[in-house]
Amino acid sequence: MTSSKIINDPVHGFIEVPKGILLDLIDTEEFQRLRRIKQLALGSMVYPGAVHTRFNHCIGAMHLTREAMTHLRQRGVEITDEEYMGTLIAILLHDVGHGPFSHALESVIVQGLNHERMSIAIMRELNSRFGGRLTVAMEIFEGRHPKVFLHQLVSGQLDMDRMDYLKRDSYFTGVVEGLVSDDRIIKTLDVADGRLVVASKGIYSVEKFIMARRLMYWQVYLHKAVLSAEHMIVNILQRARELRYQQKPIWMNETLDFLFGQNQLLPVEITQDVIRRYIELDDEDIMFAIKQWRRSDDKVLQLLCDSVLRRRLLKARLHESPVEPAEVARLRDEWMRKLGLSRHEIEYFVFTGEVSNSAYLVGTQEPIGILYRDGTVRDITEASDMQNIAALSTPVKRYFICQPA
Amino acid sequence: MTSSKIINDPVHGFIEVPKGILLDLIDTEEFQRLRRIKQLALGSMVYPGAVHTRFNHCIGAMHLTREAMTHLRQRGVEITDEEYMGTLIAILLHDVGHGPFSHALESVIVQGLNHERMSIAIMRELNSRFGGRLTVAMEIFEGRHPKVFLHQLVSGQLDMDRMDYLKRDSYFTGVVEGLVSDDRIIKTLDVADGRLVVASKGIYSVEKFIMARRLMYWQVYLHKAVLSAEHMIVNILQRARELRYQQKPIWMNETLDFLFGQNQLLPVEITQDVIRRYIELDDEDIMFAIKQWRRSDDKVLQLLCDSVLRRRLLKARLHESPVEPAEVARLRDEWMRKLGLSRHEIEYFVFTGEVSNSAYLVGTQEPIGILYRDGTVRDITEASDMQNIAALSTPVKRYFICQPA
Amino acid sequence: MTSSKIINDPVHGFIEVPKGILLDLIDTEEFQRLRRIKQLALGSMVYPGAVHTRFNHCIGAMHLTREAMTHLRQRGVEITDEEYMGTLIAILLHDVGHGPFSHALESVIVQGLNHERMSIAIMRELNSRFGGRLTVAMEIFEGRHPKVFLHQLVSGQLDMDRMDYLKRDSYFTGVVEGLVSDDRIIKTLDVADGRLVVASKGIYSVEKFIMARRLMYWQVYLHKAVLSAEHMIVNILQRARELRYQQKPIWMNETLDFLFGQNQLLPVEITQDVIRRYIELDDEDIMFAIKQWRRSDDKVLQLLCDSVLRRRLLKARLHESPVEPAEVARLRDEWMRKLGLSRHEIEYFVFTGEVSNSAYLVGTQEPIGILYRDGTVRDITEASDMQNIAALSTPVKRYFICQPA
Amino acid sequence: MTSSKIINDPVHGFIEVPKGILLDLIDTEEFQRLRRIKQLALGSMVYPGAVHTRFNHCIGAMHLTREAMTHLRQRGVEITDEEYMGTLIAILLHDVGHGPFSHALESVIVQGLNHERMSIAIMRELNSRFGGRLTVAMEIFEGRHPKVFLHQLVSGQLDMDRMDYLKRDSYFTGVVEGLVSDDRIIKTLDVADGRLVVASKGIYSVEKFIMARRLMYWQVYLHKAVLSAEHMIVNILQRARELRYQQKPIWMNETLDFLFGQNQLLPVEITQDVIRRYIELDDEDIMFAIKQWRRSDDKVLQLLCDSVLRRRLLKARLHESPVEPAEVARLRDEWMRKLGLSRHEIEYFVFTGEVSNSAYLVGTQEPIGILYRDGTVRDITEASDMQNIAALSTPVKRYFICQPA
Repeated sequence: MTSSKIINDPVHGFIEVPKGILLDLIDTEEFQRLRRIKQLALGSMVYPGAVHTRFNHCIGAMHLTREAMTHLRQRGVEITDEEYMGTLIAILLHDVGHGPFSHALESVIVQGLNHERMSIAIMRELNSRFGGRLTVAMEIFEGRHPKVFLHQLVSGQLDMDRMDYLKRDSYFTGVVEGLVSDDRIIKTLDVADGRLVVASKGIYSVEKFIMARRLMYWQVYLHKAVLSAEHMIVNILQRARELRYQQKPIWMNETLDFLFGQNQLLPVEITQDVIRRYIELDDEDIMFAIKQWRRSDDKVLQLLCDSVLRRRLLKARLHESPVEPAEVARLRDEWMRKLGLSRHEIEYFVFTGEVSNSAYLVGTQEPIGILYRDGTVRDITEASDMQNIAALSTPVKRYFICQPA
Repeated sequence: MTSSKIINDPVHGFIEVPKGILLDLIDTEEFQRLRRIKQLALGSMVYPGAVHTRFNHCIGAMHLTREAMTHLRQRGVEITDEEYMGTLIAILLHDVGHGPFSHALESVIVQGLNHERMSIAIMRELNSRFGGRLTVAMEIFEGRHPKVFLHQLVSGQLDMDRMDYLKRDSYFTGVVEGLVSDDRIIKTLDVADGRLVVASKGIYSVEKFIMARRLMYWQVYLHKAVLSAEHMIVNILQRARELRYQQKPIWMNETLDFLFGQNQLLPVEITQDVIRRYIELDDEDIMFAIKQWRRSDDKVLQLLCDSVLRRRLLKARLHESPVEPAEVARLRDEWMRKLGLSRHEIEYFVFTGEVSNSAYLVGTQEPIGILYRDGTVRDITEASDMQNIAALSTPVKRYFICQPA
Repeated sequence: MTSSKIINDPVHGFIEVPKGILLDLIDTEEFQRLRRIKQLALGSMVYPGAVHTRFNHCIGAMHLTREAMTHLRQRGVEITDEEYMGTLIAILLHDVGHGPFSHALESVIVQGLNHERMSIAIMRELNSRFGGRLTVAMEIFEGRHPKVFLHQLVSGQLDMDRMDYLKRDSYFTGVVEGLVSDDRIIKTLDVADGRLVVASKGIYSVEKFIMARRLMYWQVYLHKAVLSAEHMIVNILQRARELRYQQKPIWMNETLDFLFGQNQLLPVEITQDVIRRYIELDDEDIMFAIKQWRRSDDKVLQLLCDSVLRRRLLKARLHESPVEPAEVARLRDEWMRKLGLSRHEIEYFVFTGEVSNSAYLVGTQEPIGILYRDGTVRDITEASDMQNIAALSTPVKRYFICQPA
Repeated sequence: MTSSKIINDPVHGFIEVPKGILLDLIDTEEFQRLRRIKQLALGSMVYPGAVHTRFNHCIGAMHLTREAMTHLRQRGVEITDEEYMGTLIAILLHDVGHGPFSHALESVIVQGLNHERMSIAIMRELNSRFGGRLTVAMEIFEGRHPKVFLHQLVSGQLDMDRMDYLKRDSYFTGVVEGLVSDDRIIKTLDVADGRLVVASKGIYSVEKFIMARRLMYWQVYLHKAVLSAEHMIVNILQRARELRYQQKPIWMNETLDFLFGQNQLLPVEITQDVIRRYIELDDEDIMFAIKQWRRSDDKVLQLLCDSVLRRRLLKARLHESPVEPAEVARLRDEWMRKLGLSRHEIEYFVFTGEVSNSAYLVGTQEPIGILYRDGTVRDITEASDMQNIAALSTPVKRYFICQPA
């Protein structure tokens, strides 16, 4: 009898974590800080239930990966105990490099940084601390392991990361259209020619998964109020960095000060120091800073912070074509006058951008293969009656403009 | 056609809030801050999904109250439009006085304070800002309104507050045993002699509600690791206040400094200044402070903060009788030596307390009345086959002791 | 206070039916018999949970229609009390003309009959029994009422019939992909130019609804084992009719005998006698007959009945193009020899057919209109980012062949 | 890779059944007929969704038993492959002896029969057909196997039978209060001293299970309209048997005629002939007979059958003490006059009975043991804070009287 800890997850129910390296990794400071990083950053501005954290997501994704490997083994796919554990570690740590208000802020806080690079750096650090026991996990995570399907479970178009986050984000936002049937998809997984495939009877579950993903993009991840809130927080950080660089008086805690100081180097060298500082930072630090900056003498910073805290978001509009520069100029002029700001300052309040949503990618990423009874494997877009998936594989682009409400 | 906003709540689905005073109250700073106050304080230490906020709870409770009043009106109970709106405002604001890590911290941050008192103070403030439009709501909230059942919907043994939080806490913790059937209970509500009653066919739903409440107490609210975490955070704040009082060097933000400064007055006078400062404070400020204090020179503060951040909780044990003083003394001696702390300091790490759980109160609070077809009303404990409810109405007490793990 | 009956529906929860005509109609024999007619006929051969009845479906559809009308009234759409009740009666009775193993058998038992025609005939009968109180309901049901949107609620591309059956069939089969968010769609319904439309914010829920419908077609309604079972039962009835016509000895109950006797007339005149007999018949009669015929001397009948009862279904294969006549002939020859049957008889065991699935129809039926904020209404297939809906509106045809396993 | 069949169960999701003996047993006629026997007999008269069958229940119970054994093996409990398969067969077939409208009718159709006895007889039959491969299963089923906990999984106070039917009946009736957390209870199961126990952390789940069971008894199994319907159908069969015995003209199919003919023997000898006939009979035969008897010349039979078909149930009233004989006599006199029936005949319409409900039995059946961390095992009623379970272990008796409405 191996002893274990049971984690009660509202999405997947009881998750057993056996004592040993998995539990030890969960107990590290690097992982525990994910408790303070929200999965959907400012998604809760629109969906108040969506305050769930990356901590929960990573453990959930590990759970699904375990279910998938158990299923594959039952189907006769060989996975050694070392590979099994390696895959679980890889998925558990796949998001360990996420910073506060992830995606949005990662490149603002430390220029040129992205969370994948940081995840790898932190894993390397942990690997040396754990005496090399993460080596296989890193091979799998970085796509260097010969059993490609293990990497695909961790990172691919039908990986356990997406499977968990779609279901979890659906659960916590209440957007029920995003619900995916993870257990059904997992029970149709198989391996053909070393690659992850789905048995043909699972084709509609996969289709539903792709549709759900697209839906979650439009209704949640790229919701215009979420876009607005995230750009506001990016602008807040950029303004703070700007003021610091100009040596204007501005409240700043030690960690943020250190990280902002790194920005001159391009790309940042991820030293142990950078890692140590980086993992000190979480959503709460940023929110605390925003509350301090709300009383700043800088009008731009003060206005943006106050608006975020009182949820007076900039108004975003989505368009099918890029916003005309003349229109942007006109709006900036108008708001410069109204708010009494300079031409440079108004760019923090009136700005444009683009977002795109492709539920399923053809070409760039490995396709989702459907395994037919006769042993052939076809890309899902080529499966009969799946014209709509093909239709969806063209990325849809939208252009937005934000301005004060 | 009245215009409205739709809030997507994972627990109750779409909640429509009509434009007007309800939406205006939600948009106030006093209410928006509830987005940053977790419903279950440190419950997420044990149930990682339980990061939901009071913001969501208050809106959910308002939704249920509306459902209940719509049902009662259909049954012929008279509720004027003014009373209807007053009750909705009362339930919406019933928790507006909650501070960070509510319950746990309220009396530590501002001595003698409790959230009900603060809720009333804030409502009074809002009432003057909104030109007296909260007057009926305050009568209902404070139990001064002649229609007693409206107060009972907001605050009673079967109120919409409990109905929402049990369902919500169950949803976010994953403790499915706490799930209550709010729609079924609501559909059996009635009014007899001016008081809220439940039609006899709803008796088992009420019983299940009482059981669920008791279950949530033991499994969530009084879970020993939650107890431990909450007492650790209380001790952190108390240590910080102690150090400040002793004028030891300690990081402190302005708001906390101001509020700690009020502590000499007993009871605190809730001035506009106190209110203004109080509503600046939320969970994130406390967490940020803990991160600063983790680097404090004071060993007690440093140790407690580090433990909370890394989730190395003190070990709590529950007993059916009070812990022997000799046992406490023995443990304190042992840990004084091990940790190198003084007799006073060790009290922050080894301490006792008691908790009690009564799912249903006889005598002190108004009973839950069951309305029979012949028009008689009986207390649920007296209804036949409900021996177990009677059994449950004796409060169950437990005694705990915490010590380093 | 109006008195009412509460029906506990696992799909929608408590459904209140006020005393009066609705409850009286439910209590008629015509309606009660729907308790013995399964919604999915032989769907339970593949999905064992799918034994739910039309009785439940009709009440559920009425519930949704009431929710929809309550919502529309709140949005300011005028619906008089008479229209309100008429619409509820129309949806309650929309399936009252269904016979045993509906769709499959309706034209076998009484040639040329279909359930819509029979529903109207029964409503007419009930209308005279209820003193003309169904007149408005019949206008709405038959599309003769000036408020077109009321008819659309009862019968259209987004009607409450489909809304209920998709959700219900999904619930009872366990095919979770078919789940639709009825409450969310209903909350986005509106009326423009007298027609039912969906506010633009509901576009993804409608898309999901269309996808769900298509999925349920392939996974449930047109599942090849369901197809096989339904054709077997059609063949059983046809064989029995054939034997009766040839005056071969065959067990037959009075009702079936009477109805088979009507078959010479084309089309059948729906006399009161035909109605009276027709409503005597339900799934259980057919199953009982099959159990009797299992011991028939006729080998075809005996074999088919035995196979259905032991769930030894004919094997169905789906093809994208029609099965070659030569292939059919070859298979018939083969099975004639193996089973020792004649050229005519083998047609009961080896046969072809086609099925088609169009989730959304362009042209033939009224489109689903999306109402934009600027007041314009566009067909959902023309709404941006809905290429996939357009892709789905081409009906997909499949050809099948059945043969012994 | 072992091939398998996937059954989609709305309650438990995908259930894999490996090819081999389990699937072969499911395919037997004895098991397939359970598709036509409703789990809740006439429960659908009150809960229209409750038309689910014993077929589904048996497969669901098998699924849970497999989950439980997988869990126990992970905890280090030894279960050989033979025992594993034996337990699965035992639970799969535990209800194979159920007849139509089970419980209610079993002793009316064949006097002195009960379904357990018949289940054993059918298993014995199947065992010889399957070459002795059911021997271990029968040892486990009959409690003759040395590993007592295997029998307890199949039949005990916390067995997988109850676990499945409570959850399933709750799902199909819509009585959500009956929902049990099977996965949570299963994950706390253990074996101590060869007996099934629950780890102490699962105590509240077990409590909830016991409460849920009691709730389902009052709200579903012993609901007064269900009681009435079931007694009406019992009376119908008894009247038919009486008429047959008196050689009055009465429609009867061959199977029923044969079985009624057995009634003189006490107890019935379960010959192969009796088994063969018995398994020919299912709910549909009884319903068909009722439809025939509705046109009987016998007024009692005609009235009872017509009432059942139109759902005009006798009115049942529950009392806490036995109904006074004088009251019964008075009612019989009254209804004799009104209906023009004889003193003997009126007993079919006015009758009394008693029902009792004990959620948890002390003494007679093996207690549910709670395993504490120190290794001790205590009966759940003795566990602290479980006064209410003790309160519930006294059976509650109710007395009912039925009469025409």
